Amino acid sequence: MGDISATVETYWATAQARDWRAFGATLADDVRYELPQTRERVVGRDGVVRFNAEYMGEWSLEVERVVADSTQAVSWVRFTVDEEETQGISFFTSAPDGRIQTITDFWPAPYEPPLEREQMAERF
Amino acid sequence: MGDISATVETYWATAQARDWRAFGATLADDVRYELPQTRERVVGRDGVVRFNAEYMGEWSLEVERVVADSTQAVSWVRFTVDEEETQGISFFTSAPDGRIQTITDFWPAPYEPPLEREQMAERF
Repeated sequence: MGDISATVETYWATAQARDWRAFGATLADDVRYELPQTRERVVGRDGVVRFNAEYMGEWSLEVERVVADSTQAVSWVRFTVDEEETQGISFFTSAPDGRIQTITDFWPAPYEPPLEREQMAERF
Repeated sequence: MGDISATVETYWATAQARDWRAFGATLADDVRYELPQTRERVVGRDGVVRFNAEYMGEWSLEVERVVADSTQAVSWVRFTVDEEETQGISFFTSAPDGRIQTITDFWPAPYEPPLEREQMAERF
């Protein structure tokens, strides 16, 4: 039995290091990666490694938060991509051996709030 | 000491029921609510209740997943707003008494994937 929280930390550390062999070792053979916003899906370790390794542009990442129970984890990560900051939220589930079985990624983009909220919130 | 996972379930159940008194009871007096995408912030229970209670349009919600450790939780919730589906991700931290101290909400919207990914993922 592995520790999904530690596995997720390794997943991000090896991505940042572009150590794609170690990154792949965090993944189950039949890992499933999904992006609900674009309805994209990649199944299998090689495809998921490739999807990450071939990402265009200069990027670096910093893990903001990881929340995990015994079989699931969520990470909130700050990315700098071509000098712009973006944030990624990833939901993970664990295979019985502690490797990652599923990843569901969200990439929330900035937007302008509706006018009727102007009196209800401050801006930071 | 409360259970942040149960508190988050109550937060969503009372929001769905429009029971704003019970919703407010899940929140610390000085709760801080933030939306990084719009850089909006609301501080204090009354303001956070109002921000939610006055949300425009017909909406209903269904909790997809909650992941929690002893002091933090994350929820992934599906909303139907005026017959369109959208998804919300919320990070929570707990006050010492188990009420919610901070909420950070993300609202990821659909987007078209870059062309160079066409060969790397299937669509669902």
